[in-house]
Amino acid sequence: MTGQPELPDQVIDLGKRAKAAASVLGLAGTELKNAALRAAAGLIRERRHELLAANEADLADGRASGVASGPLDRLTLTDSRLDGMVKGLLTVADLPDPVGEVLDGWRRPNGLQIERVRVPLGVVCIIYENRPNVTSDAFGLCLKSGNVALLRGSSSALRSNMAIAAVLRDACVRAGLPADCLVFVEDPSYEIATAVMKLNEYVDCLIPRGGPSLIQSIRDNATVPVIIDGDGNCHVYVDANADLDQALNILINAKTQRTSVCNAAESLVVHEAVAESFVKSAVDALVARGVELVGDEAACKISDRIAPATAGDFRTEYLDLKMSVAIVPDLTGAISHVNRYGSGHTEAILTRDLDAARRFCREVDAAAVVVNASTRFTDGEEFGFGAEIGISTQKVHARGPMGLRELTTYKYTVWGEGQVRG
Amino acid sequence: MTGQPELPDQVIDLGKRAKAAASVLGLAGTELKNAALRAAAGLIRERRHELLAANEADLADGRASGVASGPLDRLTLTDSRLDGMVKGLLTVADLPDPVGEVLDGWRRPNGLQIERVRVPLGVVCIIYENRPNVTSDAFGLCLKSGNVALLRGSSSALRSNMAIAAVLRDACVRAGLPADCLVFVEDPSYEIATAVMKLNEYVDCLIPRGGPSLIQSIRDNATVPVIIDGDGNCHVYVDANADLDQALNILINAKTQRTSVCNAAESLVVHEAVAESFVKSAVDALVARGVELVGDEAACKISDRIAPATAGDFRTEYLDLKMSVAIVPDLTGAISHVNRYGSGHTEAILTRDLDAARRFCREVDAAAVVVNASTRFTDGEEFGFGAEIGISTQKVHARGPMGLRELTTYKYTVWGEGQVRG
Repeated sequence: MTGQPELPDQVIDLGKRAKAAASVLGLAGTELKNAALRAAAGLIRERRHELLAANEADLADGRASGVASGPLDRLTLTDSRLDGMVKGLLTVADLPDPVGEVLDGWRRPNGLQIERVRVPLGVVCIIYENRPNVTSDAFGLCLKSGNVALLRGSSSALRSNMAIAAVLRDACVRAGLPADCLVFVEDPSYEIATAVMKLNEYVDCLIPRGGPSLIQSIRDNATVPVIIDGDGNCHVYVDANADLDQALNILINAKTQRTSVCNAAESLVVHEAVAESFVKSAVDALVARGVELVGDEAACKISDRIAPATAGDFRTEYLDLKMSVAIVPDLTGAISHVNRYGSGHTEAILTRDLDAARRFCREVDAAAVVVNASTRFTDGEEFGFGAEIGISTQKVHARGPMGLRELTTYKYTVWGEGQVRG
Repeated sequence: MTGQPELPDQVIDLGKRAKAAASVLGLAGTELKNAALRAAAGLIRERRHELLAANEADLADGRASGVASGPLDRLTLTDSRLDGMVKGLLTVADLPDPVGEVLDGWRRPNGLQIERVRVPLGVVCIIYENRPNVTSDAFGLCLKSGNVALLRGSSSALRSNMAIAAVLRDACVRAGLPADCLVFVEDPSYEIATAVMKLNEYVDCLIPRGGPSLIQSIRDNATVPVIIDGDGNCHVYVDANADLDQALNILINAKTQRTSVCNAAESLVVHEAVAESFVKSAVDALVARGVELVGDEAACKISDRIAPATAGDFRTEYLDLKMSVAIVPDLTGAISHVNRYGSGHTEAILTRDLDAARRFCREVDAAAVVVNASTRFTDGEEFGFGAEIGISTQKVHARGPMGLRELTTYKYTVWGEGQVRG
């Protein structure tokens, strides 16, 4: 163990509480954990008015200080959003428990029997912005995977989050688990948040959920292991051999079905052999749906409804009704464009050419590479994980959608009969 | 992508070279990679004199500046150490290629076929101290797993490392791979090393190999994902139901077979029911082998050859002929002692009691938990990985011995027939 930097006592205390609870929760059986999740769902229903009142206080402050309508909407709890939280907890209760799975095992020539067993990470810290439902969603996934959730939300949602956390902690106690299966950071100051990021002795993993400034603050300050839930600058590449009707349908879905999410497409890349016809129909379809288009020189030549792209456009995750368009001479050009500008999230190729599909899958460096389907499928629910804590755009530990399995690690157990090393 | 901090141009250039080579190496077939490894082995043999001469220059400087005999020995290359490097490269060439393994796959109700495929991390940075053979060992493991090795050794071994790196880079070119499959950081300054730790755009993973001050510097400076190869404060717990002859044999092996390694035992924990007899024979056996013993009050009462332990003793990884001794009232006491003082590396229980063994395995929080065998087995070779890049004491990404598999990540490939999200 290397030395811990000087951290405020209150932060050390949060870490100690979380770690103490982790040693209990990590050994809890599936039924006990499910009982806590179901108790939490029940208490959210029961204490709905308490939660809505706390949220109303946050909203009143937000309105008074002129918070914009977007963040204000994300901050808002409604009956249907509370129902969503309840449903989320019950869904996680129904998922299989990842803890205890024997991942692999083998016998060594000296007779040692080695097994690799899935175990909880321990204490998972999640620092998140705005949406109070994350308090409940993150708690549910952490608890089911045997991890204590150390949660730090944004100051604008403080009363909402504290009210939800109080309910969830009560549910743990009701089921017979420590209240500290959820430790909430009640001091919303930046100093406390950065100290939490340095709790190496107590925090096994930190997952930030928020925008670029949060990610940058984590990069600058965190000393604990981090899994980055990063940007999605996702491309749809239409190959020379694409089924163009299918391609158009997929493109419209990837760009417009929901624009504010990380798996929405931000950039259209088209093989020059089909550029003239495909880009024209794409422009018709996208502009009709309110999408603003910017493109490279070749794209602008095909349609005057494509404005010239600036230097930064191809790097931009718009999260909005806007899309960049690039024309490439061949598959190699498409792959290098995607690898150059992509953020390693989700990249799609639309083609009937097997070689092209396989090459794109191999050579594009992203968490998910999609053939002949929408980029919108990259998430935990669509992948069949039941729920997700985020989508990793780094390569270490977990890549792509993170469900219960990605909130675990493993330990080796080695069984012998007196073996010593020669 | 979040912004890159201001880094020296020469460091950015190293990152760019590594990343460019990674896009070639990541797609290289097994035979090509094996050819490079075999060429490297051949060239080390061929250019042995060049390597020994460079090493002699480092050694002369070391002697002149009064470097102690231990570090000087670790710095020394000999014919037999060069043979070890050659053998290491040939061993890795014979190991199975981890890249391309389909880890799992499934079909979704909407017909999407999802596969999770093992791929290289990309650029793996290793910062290491002293021993020049790490240059070759790390290169071999990285290359076989499809990763560019970005290597930074200590300044005292600079000429040795650069000579080895030159040989390895030549071997890559000879086999038809880019020389930059190994990028060596030739500027040994601290400023350059800390800048390398911040190369988020180019480095996928950083693995430090060195002592506590290196680990602390990584914790303080690194912004790229890190896997900590940390201390091993390993315990041997002798349970009330242990086979005491077997236990003594295992204890002697765990403590004295090789003292300077992380999987050597540093602490003996004994159940009070067998403490009187076992500690006496343990003291006889260990003192006869030159081991200095310190212990808690109960241990000191049993033998006057056990000196009182200071507050820090139970936290100390001696890496030497010294051991701490603690007496515990029961299994619960043993588990809590181990979890309190251990470093999460390797912990052994010696017992014939199945319940005790299973409980120790479940409740002790360590990378490896060993039943009735020496702690010394926790390494890549003994686990059957063929070779190792280190032993992780963190929980994120990899835990315990890290071989080729642990130097990889995965990507999802999603195969559809026009699916869009509803």
